[in-house]
Amino acid sequence: MVNISILGSTGSIGRNTLEIVQSHSHRFGVAGMAAGRNFELFCQQVRRFSPKIVSLQRKEDADRFGQVCGLRDIQIVFGSEGTEQVARFPESDIVVSSITGIDGLKPTLAAVESGKKVALANKESMVVAGSLIQAEMTKSGAEIIPVDSEHSGIFQCLAKENTSDVKKVILTASGGPFFNTTAEEMRNKSVREALNHPRWKMGAKVTIDSATLMNKGLELIEARWLFNLKPEQLAVLIHPQSIVHSLVEMRDGSVLAQLSQTDMKIPIQYALTYPERLDSSLPYLDLARTPSLEFYEVDSVKFPLIALARDALTRGESFSVALNAANEVAVEAFLEEAIPFHAISEIVTQALINHRDENVRTVDHIFEIDRETRKRTRDLLERT
Amino acid sequence: MVNISILGSTGSIGRNTLEIVQSHSHRFGVAGMAAGRNFELFCQQVRRFSPKIVSLQRKEDADRFGQVCGLRDIQIVFGSEGTEQVARFPESDIVVSSITGIDGLKPTLAAVESGKKVALANKESMVVAGSLIQAEMTKSGAEIIPVDSEHSGIFQCLAKENTSDVKKVILTASGGPFFNTTAEEMRNKSVREALNHPRWKMGAKVTIDSATLMNKGLELIEARWLFNLKPEQLAVLIHPQSIVHSLVEMRDGSVLAQLSQTDMKIPIQYALTYPERLDSSLPYLDLARTPSLEFYEVDSVKFPLIALARDALTRGESFSVALNAANEVAVEAFLEEAIPFHAISEIVTQALINHRDENVRTVDHIFEIDRETRKRTRDLLERT
Repeated sequence: MVNISILGSTGSIGRNTLEIVQSHSHRFGVAGMAAGRNFELFCQQVRRFSPKIVSLQRKEDADRFGQVCGLRDIQIVFGSEGTEQVARFPESDIVVSSITGIDGLKPTLAAVESGKKVALANKESMVVAGSLIQAEMTKSGAEIIPVDSEHSGIFQCLAKENTSDVKKVILTASGGPFFNTTAEEMRNKSVREALNHPRWKMGAKVTIDSATLMNKGLELIEARWLFNLKPEQLAVLIHPQSIVHSLVEMRDGSVLAQLSQTDMKIPIQYALTYPERLDSSLPYLDLARTPSLEFYEVDSVKFPLIALARDALTRGESFSVALNAANEVAVEAFLEEAIPFHAISEIVTQALINHRDENVRTVDHIFEIDRETRKRTRDLLERT
Repeated sequence: MVNISILGSTGSIGRNTLEIVQSHSHRFGVAGMAAGRNFELFCQQVRRFSPKIVSLQRKEDADRFGQVCGLRDIQIVFGSEGTEQVARFPESDIVVSSITGIDGLKPTLAAVESGKKVALANKESMVVAGSLIQAEMTKSGAEIIPVDSEHSGIFQCLAKENTSDVKKVILTASGGPFFNTTAEEMRNKSVREALNHPRWKMGAKVTIDSATLMNKGLELIEARWLFNLKPEQLAVLIHPQSIVHSLVEMRDGSVLAQLSQTDMKIPIQYALTYPERLDSSLPYLDLARTPSLEFYEVDSVKFPLIALARDALTRGESFSVALNAANEVAVEAFLEEAIPFHAISEIVTQALINHRDENVRTVDHIFEIDRETRKRTRDLLERT
C-alpha cells in the first residue's frame, strides 16, 4: 500500500487525485489531507478516505471539524504550519503538492526536506525557489515527479536520455480561449470569457494564466529548474488541439513527444505510480478520430507575459519571484472585475520595470521580494 | 574509433551510412564492405574509405577488383560466403545489415552469431527468422539496433519502459503514392507511378512495397520480434506527412512518439551512435512550418497485403517466410513489367492459399520454404 498526502485536496488536482486513489484502492491509501476553506467538501473527502492527519486553513474551522464531521482518531491541525505538518507526516510516501500560487512553496519545501516523493502540481514553488528546492533535494534525497501535463510529458520523453544531448525542450500551449481573437478584441474580454478554456478544466487562476499565456511562461521557468535546462534549450509552440503536451528535440534531429487525452488524471496517475504504470480509466487516444495536429509560433506581442517569462530565464531568480507575485495580484484583480483583461499584462509589466535582479538565498528572502512586489502592484492598481 | 562493416554499401542505406561516417570521421572508420554488382560505385567507395576486407557478389568481379581499382593490402572475397566473412570480420564493432530481401538473412545471422552490435536495415531477416535470431542473440550477446525509421522510433520511445506496460505500438505509414487513389484507379498503375514515393527516397523493392503497404506489413512482423510484442499490441496508422514515425501507447493512456525529418540519415546515425547521440547534419524539424499532422485508419480492402501480414502475426512462422517470398517474386515481376500493379497482391494471396503453418527450426528450413514458395509463385505467374 502506498500512502499519499494531498495538499489542496478540494482543488481540481486534489479531487482528481482522490478519484485515482479510489479507482486503485488496492494500491493507494490516503495518509494526510490539507485544504483551505471548502469545509463541506473537505468533510466529505475526509470521511470517505480516512486520513490520519488533516489540516484546514482557519483555526475556527479546525476546532469544529472533528465534531461537525463526526470524526474520531484523527489529528486535526490548521494554518500554514498545519499544511506543513501534513507535508512532513512520516506515514506518507508520496506528497501531492497542489496548492495554487506561492502558498504552495513552504509545504512543498517541507515535503522535499522530509525526503518524500513529491508529485508536484504547484508550479510556483519551482518558479520562485527552483535553486533552493534543488539544493534541498540533493540533501534529503527527495524526488520530484511533475504533475503538469507538459512537464510530465518532458519527464517521460527524457527517460534514459542525456540532458547534454537535448537541443530543445518544447512545451505546447493550447493558445487558450483567445488564440483566434485579435489583440484588439482581446483587450476587454470578460471574466466569463477568459474562464472558458477550450481544452482543459482547471482552477480559475491557472485558467486566466492560460488566457494570457502567463501559465506557459511559468511552465518555462519551472522546466528550467525541473530539468536543469539552459534558456536556449526551452521553447513554446501553440498547439490548439492540446494532444501533444511536450516535445524533446535531440541533437541528432530526433524528436520525442508525449501525447494523451486532455485529462489531468493521466499525468497525476503517472506521478503516483512512477516508475510503473497502471491502466487508465479513460478512453484511449484515437488519433484516427482526432482533428489533425497543428503547431504555430507564439505571438509574444499579443501575449507580452510570455516574453517577460523568457526574460526571467536569463535574469536573477528574484525576477521570477516578482513576476509571479505581480501576476498573482493582477489576476486576482481581474477575477474580482476590478481591472479589464488587457490590464493584467500591463500592470505586471509596469510592476517589474525597475526590478533589480538578485539571487534568492532563503525562503524569507523570497517572501520579502514577493511582499514588496505585491505591495508595488497593488499601489499601481489603485492608481489606475 | 568505432569500426563499421557495411553489408550492401552501394544501396540507399549503405550510401547514407558512408555519408555519416564521412561527416564524423573522427569517430567512425570502415572495417569491411560488401556489395553486389555495382562494380564502379563500389570501387570508388572502397578507395575512399579503405576497409580491410571487401566482398563482391561475383567471383569474376572479385578477381579483377584489386587491380582495376588499384588497391593493395586488402582482403577481397566474394559471394554469400564472402558477405558473411565481412559480417563476421573480427575488427568491426558494428555491422550495418542493409542488403535487401532474404539475401540479407545469412549475413545478418553471421553478425549476430559473432556477437556484434547490428544496425539492422534488412527487415526480412527478422520477418523470416525472428525466433532464430532472438535465440542467437541470447547466446552471443549481440545487440540489434533497428534502422527502419519506424522501429528506430519505437526503440527510442520504449527506452526505460516496461514492455508489459505497453498497450499498443503504432507504426505509421505514409500511405505511399496511391493513398488518395481509388482502388479502381490503382489497379493498373505503372512502375514509374509506383516508384514515385511522396516522402521517402528508397530502393525500388521497398518503394513498391510502400505502394502496396506490404512494407508496413513486413514492419509489423519485424516489430513483433524486435520488441517481443503480441499481435494485439501492434497497429498501423496512415500518416501522410511521415513526420511521426511511430507511437507507443502505454496502459495509462500516455502515448510516446518519435518524430523527425523524413531522412534515413537520422535513424542510421542513431543506430551507429546509440546509446549516445551526435549532432545532425540536417535542418532540424520545424513544426510551426510543417503541414498539420493527420492520421487515418488503414483501408485493408484496398491494401489486402497488410491484412495478410496481420494474419502472419498469429500464424506459424513459416507463413511469414512464404508471404515474404511470394511478395519478392511478385514485386520483381511487376518491376519487370510482367504483371500489372493489382496482380502483386492477387498473386501473393493465391500463393499462400494452401499454406500449412509450421514453426521454423533452422535456416535451411527457412530457405526450403522460401524456395518452394518462390517456385509456386512463379508457376502462378506463368499461368496468368
